[in-house]
Amino acid sequence: MIAIPLEDRIALQDLMTAYCYAVDKLANVEELLALFTEGAVLDFTQIGLPLMNGHGEIKQFFDRVFADMSHHAHYISNFRPVRYEGGAAAMTAYVIGIGRARDGNTVEVNVQYLFEAVRQSSGSWLCERYSMFSMMPLPGSLTEIHGEH
Amino acid sequence: MIAIPLEDRIALQDLMTAYCYAVDKLANVEELLALFTEGAVLDFTQIGLPLMNGHGEIKQFFDRVFADMSHHAHYISNFRPVRYEGGAAAMTAYVIGIGRARDGNTVEVNVQYLFEAVRQSSGSWLCERYSMFSMMPLPGSLTEIHGEH
Amino acid sequence: MIAIPLEDRIALQDLMTAYCYAVDKLANVEELLALFTEGAVLDFTQIGLPLMNGHGEIKQFFDRVFADMSHHAHYISNFRPVRYEGGAAAMTAYVIGIGRARDGNTVEVNVQYLFEAVRQSSGSWLCERYSMFSMMPLPGSLTEIHGEH
Repeated sequence: MIAIPLEDRIALQDLMTAYCYAVDKLANVEELLALFTEGAVLDFTQIGLPLMNGHGEIKQFFDRVFADMSHHAHYISNFRPVRYEGGAAAMTAYVIGIGRARDGNTVEVNVQYLFEAVRQSSGSWLCERYSMFSMMPLPGSLTEIHGEH
Repeated sequence: MIAIPLEDRIALQDLMTAYCYAVDKLANVEELLALFTEGAVLDFTQIGLPLMNGHGEIKQFFDRVFADMSHHAHYISNFRPVRYEGGAAAMTAYVIGIGRARDGNTVEVNVQYLFEAVRQSSGSWLCERYSMFSMMPLPGSLTEIHGEH
Repeated sequence: MIAIPLEDRIALQDLMTAYCYAVDKLANVEELLALFTEGAVLDFTQIGLPLMNGHGEIKQFFDRVFADMSHHAHYISNFRPVRYEGGAAAMTAYVIGIGRARDGNTVEVNVQYLFEAVRQSSGSWLCERYSMFSMMPLPGSLTEIHGEH
């Protein structure tokens, strides 16, 4: 286990948890964007979804997700700091993500998140790179719901 | 993220976790009641279940739950402090609640809990208002199992 | 709730979480063994699986698990310290364990873990006894997948 000050560890857990709350609210994409640096990269390619560069592309992706989904719940656990360099850090976590689209289609994923974060001058942490991989075979409904139309 | 002393944050997490252990034990309702103030309100109306006022009504509800269920497991995660005023605080969490009734019926809910707690003169925290809402469509078996008979 | 220093509490949570990561990697059984004392006992008898005594028997069991399974995900939550004596401590947690065998069989368990740990001269904690019980009826696929062949 790597050494990391407790307050930074909790800040990173809170950042990942805040992302889950924001993505589950299915409204107010600005609240979600506020957790990421302006140029943050979201790499969902390991689960067959897009690579996004910066707030503009992230907003575009989640605008459509929020429009398409009627329900979301992302359960986060198994927090684990994996890198700490004072001003930069990385943490992994496990997520059970479940959702229901407005068309009635449902999806459940069992994934592992990696958040690579940087400390801001304000002292708070923002994510600059967020990637994930699936721990179980992916359901076909995932790309039906979130894939390129 | 709101500011809250770490020890209070952990005490609130422990209170919510203790509730899950107590409700999953399916025995000893007194252990569950001990987590709530005498006049605590449990508002389950957003998931189609009762509003309970005080230990008497809470006991009545859980006496029947404990009699009806053979298995319970309430997985709690996504802890988030949402209010802190020194002597009073509120925390939310996500819960996957699964259960099996003695008649073989099963239920799974994906809910978000809100615990509003008050610090006691002893320094410990008790819940004075506990409410929840569902993050996914509710299964019909929920009111079959826990609804008014 | 028992009294336990925060750093020990976090170390115990990290130990249990590290076990989940190790068992989900499905490779490198040495990384898993490193979390247990040389003579550690793993008692899985309450879910119909073996009792293992020491690294040799633990390795034998997980060598086969890692060979048989293509996917694993163990979600851990509801951490609760249950004993603390300075140099020894115990913690419980809830786990949703899901897996897929190479033959396509799948398994999901809803269990409660108990880790009984001892502080090493290095200051770190190792598990010396790990047991679990199921919170829900066990699926038949559990012993099909992990039982004695």
